[in-house]
Amino acid sequence: MSYTEIEYSVADRVATITLDRPDRLNAFTYVMRGELIDAFDRADADDDVRAVVVTGRGRAFCAGADLERGAGTFDHEAVKSVPGEREVFADGVLRDGGGTVALRIARSLKPVIAAINGPAVGVGVTMTLPMDVRLAADGARFGFVFARRGIVTEAASSWFLPRLVGIAQAMEWSVTGRVFDADEALRGRLVSRLYPAEGLLDAAYELAGEIAANTSAVAVAAVRRLMWSGLSASSPWDAHRADSLLMRAFGAAPDAAEGVTAFLEKRPAEFPMKISRDLPTDVPVWPGPDPTGSTQGL
Amino acid sequence: MSYTEIEYSVADRVATITLDRPDRLNAFTYVMRGELIDAFDRADADDDVRAVVVTGRGRAFCAGADLERGAGTFDHEAVKSVPGEREVFADGVLRDGGGTVALRIARSLKPVIAAINGPAVGVGVTMTLPMDVRLAADGARFGFVFARRGIVTEAASSWFLPRLVGIAQAMEWSVTGRVFDADEALRGRLVSRLYPAEGLLDAAYELAGEIAANTSAVAVAAVRRLMWSGLSASSPWDAHRADSLLMRAFGAAPDAAEGVTAFLEKRPAEFPMKISRDLPTDVPVWPGPDPTGSTQGL
Amino acid sequence: MSYTEIEYSVADRVATITLDRPDRLNAFTYVMRGELIDAFDRADADDDVRAVVVTGRGRAFCAGADLERGAGTFDHEAVKSVPGEREVFADGVLRDGGGTVALRIARSLKPVIAAINGPAVGVGVTMTLPMDVRLAADGARFGFVFARRGIVTEAASSWFLPRLVGIAQAMEWSVTGRVFDADEALRGRLVSRLYPAEGLLDAAYELAGEIAANTSAVAVAAVRRLMWSGLSASSPWDAHRADSLLMRAFGAAPDAAEGVTAFLEKRPAEFPMKISRDLPTDVPVWPGPDPTGSTQGL
Repeated sequence: MSYTEIEYSVADRVATITLDRPDRLNAFTYVMRGELIDAFDRADADDDVRAVVVTGRGRAFCAGADLERGAGTFDHEAVKSVPGEREVFADGVLRDGGGTVALRIARSLKPVIAAINGPAVGVGVTMTLPMDVRLAADGARFGFVFARRGIVTEAASSWFLPRLVGIAQAMEWSVTGRVFDADEALRGRLVSRLYPAEGLLDAAYELAGEIAANTSAVAVAAVRRLMWSGLSASSPWDAHRADSLLMRAFGAAPDAAEGVTAFLEKRPAEFPMKISRDLPTDVPVWPGPDPTGSTQGL
Repeated sequence: MSYTEIEYSVADRVATITLDRPDRLNAFTYVMRGELIDAFDRADADDDVRAVVVTGRGRAFCAGADLERGAGTFDHEAVKSVPGEREVFADGVLRDGGGTVALRIARSLKPVIAAINGPAVGVGVTMTLPMDVRLAADGARFGFVFARRGIVTEAASSWFLPRLVGIAQAMEWSVTGRVFDADEALRGRLVSRLYPAEGLLDAAYELAGEIAANTSAVAVAAVRRLMWSGLSASSPWDAHRADSLLMRAFGAAPDAAEGVTAFLEKRPAEFPMKISRDLPTDVPVWPGPDPTGSTQGL
Repeated sequence: MSYTEIEYSVADRVATITLDRPDRLNAFTYVMRGELIDAFDRADADDDVRAVVVTGRGRAFCAGADLERGAGTFDHEAVKSVPGEREVFADGVLRDGGGTVALRIARSLKPVIAAINGPAVGVGVTMTLPMDVRLAADGARFGFVFARRGIVTEAASSWFLPRLVGIAQAMEWSVTGRVFDADEALRGRLVSRLYPAEGLLDAAYELAGEIAANTSAVAVAAVRRLMWSGLSASSPWDAHRADSLLMRAFGAAPDAAEGVTAFLEKRPAEFPMKISRDLPTDVPVWPGPDPTGSTQGL
């Protein structure tokens, strides 16, 4: 699959997904939705990819849904003949497009780092919530502007946002629809760290490299699923059951032997296991139907 | 209904609920409980109300349960003949009075802003936890003093508090029963911002005004329900299902058309929809029985 | 039971559990696991213990699993003949050893304060997550190093960690496996406060003393269970039901009468109730099977 609205590249064991409609501030479309889902499938399937960095081309990260269709932008009947639109039903419900991307990202087997280089508004910010770490340029701006457009918070952000920033901050941003600057995002814990624009991608790659250089790919995939599904688990007893299964599987596997041996020998580990071949079957699967149309993964 | 222990007023599209027993530091009674529930019903039913501000008359916000009945204050058998007391049973369980208020506030259709002007202790602070944003005077004081009185944290605060401030902070405050100052409350993220006492209400009204001036009332009501029930949802898949239903309903409705059009025309939006008439049926309902005795809403 | 790898002592109504293998940086073993579970049983059963402080002997808190068995350290088949190893099955699943300790701590009836005096790595840090408050020496270091050893986050940390520090911080620490210093732990809200090493235990005892001096033991036990199970509850309605039952039971009990009377008389309360004798049956029980082998409590 070749892409027209994003760019996908791999270097130094890190995949970069670049939102690539700079003349439209990388506004989100149905075409972009499909390409993003495909790109995350591709990253998961490639053992040479240890982490994914998502950023935007030009001065914006993503300005939100493309409003070029005007008043009918969010009206399903009006848009279902738009190029790239694909009705996704699950459980009898027509699925929100931003949500299908968000849930695809949530179940990524590779850690995902957002490098928010400029404005991230509407689905442009909610799509980053299921990513693992958000780094931002100090001039970035953010807005959960849905209530100002007469619609609701989407992309499952009602689940992600209050868990990321606390319900008080989530509500203040969501019910005012305010556009706010990077300092407010940092104080409110929406982003982990700020960087000058010119240093942002380097910071993202440094973090990705720290993962790639030091850890077992299979362990990281399992940890990512454990931790996110742990945040869904109703009690620590559920989490304990899940990690007991995985501790047994991983404890007897080659990466654990190498990890411990390398540590004791004070040398870098060379982990032999590959996700494509060796991912234990006990790795948790997110609950619910899969409305993403993804061909990969659960 | 006219009130004797609170005051209710509406101005500039904002309802103000003032705890109004200044000679008793606005201590909480069964009468106040009933009046608060009624006032939130009234605010929800009034389309001219876009947000609710809750504050206290005089130097306190609310000193907690009125202890004028002494040793038997919390003994149900001893108090059930007290004026205003009304036994609320649900699911076979006699319900905690503070909890009935908290849950009524939790399902408000309008954003609720606490303007904590002075001491907020016991139910005086737990009643603010289901409000959306807590602003406080820099001289306010707080205390989850229950264990010092030989009782337990109430008003469903075992659900709200650890989600607001984290379990470590929630436990430290709850098991010491400590009374702490506004700076500790701010550092611990119990309140969002501090203000000099004389500027507190203005700050609350400014935030309420930001909501009223810019957003769709129906969208805000739906977002409030989505976000709080999202914090209850067991997985993002549940949240995605809920917001998919609402994105479809709102996307085809007049407020979305106006919101997008106004944005593209760079003018303030004039949203036509009203909560009393146009709230989509898919707006989430909190689970469980309704023990509030409320006549309004779910 | 006498202990060989921990020390247990009680003074001034506070139990101290000291990890006591200083020559191995207090590395975790199966023997230590059993002794820790027993020590928490003992603390719960002793009405003279109002809080528990956990710390490490010497320069470390706990360096993680003892790796002296080398490559096979985490391989269940290789270790099941190790002294102290006891296979714990529940629900058909062999249980992770760190998790059995973590869950035993989670259901402690006494507040638990970690005094992290030095390195806390692997299970050395995850065992502290179900404790109520983490205080640390300013020279302490931390690491969720599992993915560097080819294994997964254990001890139910996939439930505890994202709730304590947020999912973004949890993921960053877990997928890098980074070892980080006390300042990063404080900024990331893993620990509540830092102290010079020589003042750390005093600070822990001061906090424990604040609990012991001011509160009802029975109320604190119930609050601890309410709050942690509230963090598990799927909605505030569940929490409201639980605290309604307890407010009724506690409201009619002697500690509430004494707590209110003492407050009104402006004197310290002398609470008559004891956990061993008076704990109401409505105190919440954590869900799920009990794989700890604990003889005490739920």
